[in-house]
Parts: sequence; structure tokens; C-alpha cells
Amino acid sequence: MIITKPYIFKVRYYETDKMGIVHHSNYIRWMEEARLDYLEQLGQRFDKLEADGVISPVVSVSCNYKISCIFGDTVEIKVKLIEYTGIRYVFEYEIVRAGSGETAATGRSEHCVINKDGRPVSIKRRFPAFDSLLSECVNRDKDCF
Amino acid sequence: MIITKPYIFKVRYYETDKMGIVHHSNYIRWMEEARLDYLEQLGQRFDKLEADGVISPVVSVSCNYKISCIFGDTVEIKVKLIEYTGIRYVFEYEIVRAGSGETAATGRSEHCVINKDGRPVSIKRRFPAFDSLLSECVNRDKDCF
Amino acid sequence: MIITKPYIFKVRYYETDKMGIVHHSNYIRWMEEARLDYLEQLGQRFDKLEADGVISPVVSVSCNYKISCIFGDTVEIKVKLIEYTGIRYVFEYEIVRAGSGETAATGRSEHCVINKDGRPVSIKRRFPAFDSLLSECVNRDKDCF
Amino acid sequence: MIITKPYIFKVRYYETDKMGIVHHSNYIRWMEEARLDYLEQLGQRFDKLEADGVISPVVSVSCNYKISCIFGDTVEIKVKLIEYTGIRYVFEYEIVRAGSGETAATGRSEHCVINKDGRPVSIKRRFPAFDSLLSECVNRDKDCF
Repeated sequence: MIITKPYIFKVRYYETDKMGIVHHSNYIRWMEEARLDYLEQLGQRFDKLEADGVISPVVSVSCNYKISCIFGDTVEIKVKLIEYTGIRYVFEYEIVRAGSGETAATGRSEHCVINKDGRPVSIKRRFPAFDSLLSECVNRDKDCF
Repeated sequence: MIITKPYIFKVRYYETDKMGIVHHSNYIRWMEEARLDYLEQLGQRFDKLEADGVISPVVSVSCNYKISCIFGDTVEIKVKLIEYTGIRYVFEYEIVRAGSGETAATGRSEHCVINKDGRPVSIKRRFPAFDSLLSECVNRDKDCF
Repeated sequence: MIITKPYIFKVRYYETDKMGIVHHSNYIRWMEEARLDYLEQLGQRFDKLEADGVISPVVSVSCNYKISCIFGDTVEIKVKLIEYTGIRYVFEYEIVRAGSGETAATGRSEHCVINKDGRPVSIKRRFPAFDSLLSECVNRDKDCF
Repeated sequence: MIITKPYIFKVRYYETDKMGIVHHSNYIRWMEEARLDYLEQLGQRFDKLEADGVISPVVSVSCNYKISCIFGDTVEIKVKLIEYTGIRYVFEYEIVRAGSGETAATGRSEHCVINKDGRPVSIKRRFPAFDSLLSECVNRDKDCF
């Protein structure tokens, strides 16, 4: 299994607010960017599930803000999969200001797969390849950061 | 034909940027909000077209910024339909800071209807009710603001 | 003390994503809109603090998603202040699809006040009027929804 | 003078809307990302102006949409400075889907510099280094794309 690399990008000007710092809602978006990049590195394009008539919505999300990111910052996001039940999967994130190495925020997001009627779908039964991937990732990521 | 009312709302905090003013990209979003509100006032829910297997994308958009809107402002957007060809329709916008009555910006957007293959669809032939609506609006709005 | 009204608005088209539902990050923005509206109903303009050389950033935020909001929905957000320590204050939110009355999501956000150097400021000592307001709200809101 | 490279990035999931394509307002944001990257490549950090007590707001913006960008696309934005008067400067953009090489959109944005009172500031007189840079770029970019 390949080692997934952190997601690195530069803060965009429009992500700042009148406090002069990045608006807190953008960290939630960054977590999504980092999560989809993580999955794509492993060969799982997120929108492929959608082509199969299901979607994978966010069940819950949380973020703890420690130090503000500002325009000009390069941000590095470390992602790990910390839980997978066959139906739900949970990611954790560490958002780092690359210059200083400080942890700006930590986050968590929980996901499931549902069909067009909004009913939960078993990843284990319906998407065996995705199931294997998530199982392997949980084992590997356990001891990360 | 009913008189459409201007679209009124308050600037949201997250729409500001580190200059302390509303980020210019949000005016483009406001124009959409105002346009869909205008159409809905006339009984045309925008997403109803989508249920018919077509979408109505933006062909072009422009905005001239005169005075910055800031957090705390109530904004009023006057909308008029200035052109309709049976295939394309064009809106114009006046974005006003309601407190002072100053024009903050003016804008313009052009739209068509396309099918799933990206081919233009004749509104005139395929959506006669929408066609009538747009025709009436162009006539009525000609002399507005 | 006046009764604060829920924050009501309509989902904006640009808030949707390719799943056809509102992108989860927008609920975090909605919580901010509802929180600032709550404070403004009580006479506390959020940006007034900023004029005093301090800012009130988000310390943590979380959201649990139950039912997806979609374009066309009218959304009603009930806000209550559940904790205030003199330094930090915590809001809870119930996000309701107004048509059906279903709870779409619940959320929580925690806030402090910091000066230009990023140091926490005592609301109790430095902003007595805001302190009184928050104290009264916590008492009143305890038993809401 | 160094050759500025195009700005390259991948479409973010949250930039899509319920039509399944990138929301048109995001192209305006991309143009900003590409413009600031262009200036930074030339050693001009955009926020440095702000540290001098002035801001450089957008005076006008326009975009013509030809082909929709979708999630999964890598996007390449070519930027050129087409006009500089000592007070205002104008950029043009070509937004390309990197996979197919198709032009997805073209855009234009116009900028000035104003002081805290909203009065225009002469770049030529007040910011000679920025003035030289813009003058050189206009000469160089004239014949681009």
C-alpha cells in the first residue's frame, strides 16, 4: 500500500475575512480537499461512487482552531483514517502552517454512503474494493501523527 | 403581470475579506440570488427546468464596482430582463446600499438553456411557458431604473 | 430581555454541490449568520468589538448532519447560548427545514475574545456590557428547544 | 524579467453546484488566485500594499464561459497584463481544461489602488517599484496567447 502524502496548498485571498485571518468555515472545506486528495492518491476517485448511483455525505464534522492561518501561508494537511465499520468511516486531520510547523487546527469528519432514497448502503457488501481500501487504511493509519 | 420586488438581504460576515470589504466574487453570487428570486416571484422555480433534463448555465457575467459594501450593510438589488432572443436571455442588476441609497455596483449576466449533451435548447420551442414569461418581462422591464 | 427570534432564510443556489444537496461547509456559515443575527437582535453588533481592537474568533465548531437541505428549502435556525465563563462563550444551533419541520442538523460553536497579539481578553473585565448580555442569555436560554 | 508560469490547480469538490459543474462565481475567484500567483512570481506580494495602508480593489470583472469545468479537472490559467495607466491596471485570463486543452472561459479584471478614505492613489508616484513592474509586464505580455 502506498504512503499517502500530506495535502499542501497556499491560502487563497478570498478565504480571508475582515478579521484578517482565514474564515473558520474554510478549514472544513480544506479538510474535504485533503480527504479527497488522500483517497485519490489511493486510486479512489470520490465521484466514481456517484456514478454508481450513491453518494457519500458527511455525517458529522468538527474542528478545533488553535492558531489562525493567514494569507501568504502554505498549509499542510495530514490525513488519517481512524475508523471504519463497513458502513461508516471517520477521518482525522492535522492542519499545519508549513512555515512555522505549528498546528493551526485539528479536525474530524465522519462519512457514510447512501442511495438515492437516502438509505444507508453497506460499503462492505456493495463496494468491496472501497471496503478493502478503507480496511487497509485504518490498519496503516492507526499510529500516524 | 405582477411587479417584481427588489431582492433585499444583509451582508454576511463570511462574505468579507481581509481588505475589510465584501469580496468582489460575492457580488456575482448576489446577482444569482436576485435573479432566481426575480424568477420565483414570477412563478418560475429555476430548478424546475433541471427536472426537465436541461440546465440553464451562465454564458457571460460582468460587474462594475463603484462603492464597497461592508458587513452591516443591507443590500437591495434591482433586477431587469433586458434581452431575450428565444435562445438566450440577459439580465441587468443594480446593487444598492440600502442605507445610503448609493449604487455599489452594476452587473449583467447572460444565460442559455442546454441539454445533457451541452447542446443549446430553444426556449421558445421547448418551454413555451418560460418563453412567454421572458417575453413579457423584456417588454415590461425595458424602461426600469 | 427580548425574546430572540429564529434566523430564517432560503437556501441559495450556489450553496449546493454536485450531490444535489447543500454542501456541508455552508451549515458552518449558516451557524455564523444565525449567531450574529441573535447577537444583533440583542443590540450587540459583532463588528463593534472589532472597532475596540479585539476580535472574537471561533475556538471550535461541530455539526451533526441528519437530513440534507436542498435548493428551494426555507431554513430556520434556532440559536441558544449554553455556556459563558467570562472568557469563552458557547452557542448551540438547531437547523430546521421549515417546510417539513424536520431537524436537518445540530451544531455547536465556541468563541473567545483575543487582542491584536492573539492573547485572550477577559470579556468580564474588558467588556462589561457584553458580559451582562451573555450572562443573561445563558440563564434564559438554558431551557430552550 | 522572469517568465511567469500559468497557474495550475485541481477543481475542488465544493466548487461544484447542483448542475454538476463548477459554479460560475468560482471562475472569478480562480482569476484572483491566478493574478496573485502571477504577481508573486514577479516578487510582488499582494498584501504588501495593504501593509502600506492602501488596498487594491477590483474595479470591474467579466467572464465568458465556453465549456464547463467539472470536478476531476486540472485547470490551467494563463494570465497577462494588458493595460497599465499609472493608476489602473487590467489583466486578461484564459482558463483552460488541462486534460483536453480546451478553453473553458476567458476573463478580464481591472484594478486600482485606493487609500483608507477610498481615494485613488497614483501607483506611478506612490509605489515606483510596483509601477516599474507593471510597466514591464504590459510590454512583455502584449503578444501573449
